[in-house]
Amino acid sequence: MSKPNMKQKSLTELLHNVEAYLAQSELNGEPAQLYAPIIYSMEEGGKRLRPMLTLLACGIFGDEPEAAMPCAAAVEFFHNFTLLHDDIMDNAPIRRGKPSVFRKWNQNVAILSGDAMIVYAYRLLEKAPAHLLPQIFEVFNSTAMKVFEGQQYDMDFEGRSDVSIEEYIRMIDLKTAVLLSGAARIGAIVGGASAEDLEHITRFADELGLAFQLQDDLLDSYGTEAQLGKAIGGDILEGKKTFLMITALNGLGDEERCELQSLHQNATLPAEQKIARARELFDKVDVRTQTEERIKLHFDRALSALDALSVPVERTAQMREFAQSLVGRKK
Amino acid sequence: MSKPNMKQKSLTELLHNVEAYLAQSELNGEPAQLYAPIIYSMEEGGKRLRPMLTLLACGIFGDEPEAAMPCAAAVEFFHNFTLLHDDIMDNAPIRRGKPSVFRKWNQNVAILSGDAMIVYAYRLLEKAPAHLLPQIFEVFNSTAMKVFEGQQYDMDFEGRSDVSIEEYIRMIDLKTAVLLSGAARIGAIVGGASAEDLEHITRFADELGLAFQLQDDLLDSYGTEAQLGKAIGGDILEGKKTFLMITALNGLGDEERCELQSLHQNATLPAEQKIARARELFDKVDVRTQTEERIKLHFDRALSALDALSVPVERTAQMREFAQSLVGRKK
Repeated sequence: MSKPNMKQKSLTELLHNVEAYLAQSELNGEPAQLYAPIIYSMEEGGKRLRPMLTLLACGIFGDEPEAAMPCAAAVEFFHNFTLLHDDIMDNAPIRRGKPSVFRKWNQNVAILSGDAMIVYAYRLLEKAPAHLLPQIFEVFNSTAMKVFEGQQYDMDFEGRSDVSIEEYIRMIDLKTAVLLSGAARIGAIVGGASAEDLEHITRFADELGLAFQLQDDLLDSYGTEAQLGKAIGGDILEGKKTFLMITALNGLGDEERCELQSLHQNATLPAEQKIARARELFDKVDVRTQTEERIKLHFDRALSALDALSVPVERTAQMREFAQSLVGRKK
Repeated sequence: MSKPNMKQKSLTELLHNVEAYLAQSELNGEPAQLYAPIIYSMEEGGKRLRPMLTLLACGIFGDEPEAAMPCAAAVEFFHNFTLLHDDIMDNAPIRRGKPSVFRKWNQNVAILSGDAMIVYAYRLLEKAPAHLLPQIFEVFNSTAMKVFEGQQYDMDFEGRSDVSIEEYIRMIDLKTAVLLSGAARIGAIVGGASAEDLEHITRFADELGLAFQLQDDLLDSYGTEAQLGKAIGGDILEGKKTFLMITALNGLGDEERCELQSLHQNATLPAEQKIARARELFDKVDVRTQTEERIKLHFDRALSALDALSVPVERTAQMREFAQSLVGRKK
């Protein structure tokens, strides 16, 4: 491990290179109904959080963050596959402002092209350094299984009214945070991290993932459409059991708890009034502050995990910058 | 490579060991809605054609066919995943005499547990010999992508009336035969086959797969329910463009071609009469003989590929016996 590269690429440059790599020409093949939805799903990916974590983690330990590019792309293809199939399961018509695949094509196309995206992710892993493949493969597989477990718990929770905060945290850990930690761990493996540093970087990305998801929950009620990337209040209108909702239900008295619980099913109240009323009830038990404190808890833990790494602190500067850009600044 | 093992296990013993290995206890986990459908899908698997090919191919080149057991199981999990998702796409209520997963549970459970089965197949590949993993991984991935391409072509063909015999053969090659050849190839890699022998064993299983699928087509019209494993005439009633149907449409005059083409849509004719009438039209242009000849063509090519292997002929005896049990005997 040498000193940080003085010609280190900026986050913007790395993101640009991720986008260029993801625009794989190999997917322009036949049958078009199989491959076109994959290309469509990979367009306009926003922050590319997961592949960026892979590259940045690789760059902490090695001198070439982009040595992990095929692995980074594999994680991003896997992530986009989960969105594609989740949209069928959630009957969600819109993804990133465009029709979701099962709406633009049809459900069978969405199922099959999603399946092909999983395998395409593995095709990209073929390009990992051969001597590291067994280790990377194990992390990728165990991560993927946990994501499915998280998605199943999320669906199970829809039919339950007694989900606890800790059950909720466990679910978002599996469904969201574990893929971030897998992404970072794989990058660190490519970069040559020690076993101990692998544990720290994994914990960093896992805690960052929890903070990130809780912030997403918060923005649904207290953010702007620009911050959230979609219309505000969606979770409230669906009656989703988010951190905010569960915290409010735990804190309110019987009458208001029942009101909040059934608010999304109220057929006469307009959507904006439902959102406004939910926010009122959230405010009554200071849900916003409680959520912000929990975000800070996980974010601080993430930064502590970075501090624990055995590398010179300047090697983690870019990862800190990236983490701050995701969670830290809107407070 | 030594002489064939005098204590060679019988096909029945190998099949028994495959079944025992597939009954993985690791899948008895939580959340149950994710894992229970996987266990359910893997029960009562019939011939276990694909894992048997993997083990037998391994045994041709190495002395321990079961060295390839985790890879054999990976292929079988992948195969059963394809059935699970295909049943959603085809809206098929029954699989092997039991409700299909999406009927027994629901569609979301079927999508998600199918996804998890793919990844579970890869988990099993982790147990492949580490130095062979890159090679096995590449074969597994490219095989899986071809299976998806075949399934997409099959769906595309439903909306077309001009599918040629060669397009059909290409489709069943991708959808069915390629997984058999991938299964055998992976087994041969584990067994230590040379590059040249790998090509021969792959060609063997590919041709066997074509013969096997064409025989399945034939049995739908000319077999018994016991031979086919389900009710006779299903392809005819669905208007599926099988080898028999395409051959008949090519051979008949305009009037009878139109009759056959629209037979499955006839709302007044009872099912048995549709099947009987289709068989009459098939017989007119001797579709049965043409199909039997094509099956023989591919089966003979399969056996020639075995002959081309660089191993003593007695090492291929069990594979020949297995191939005969699949295709050869019912003539």
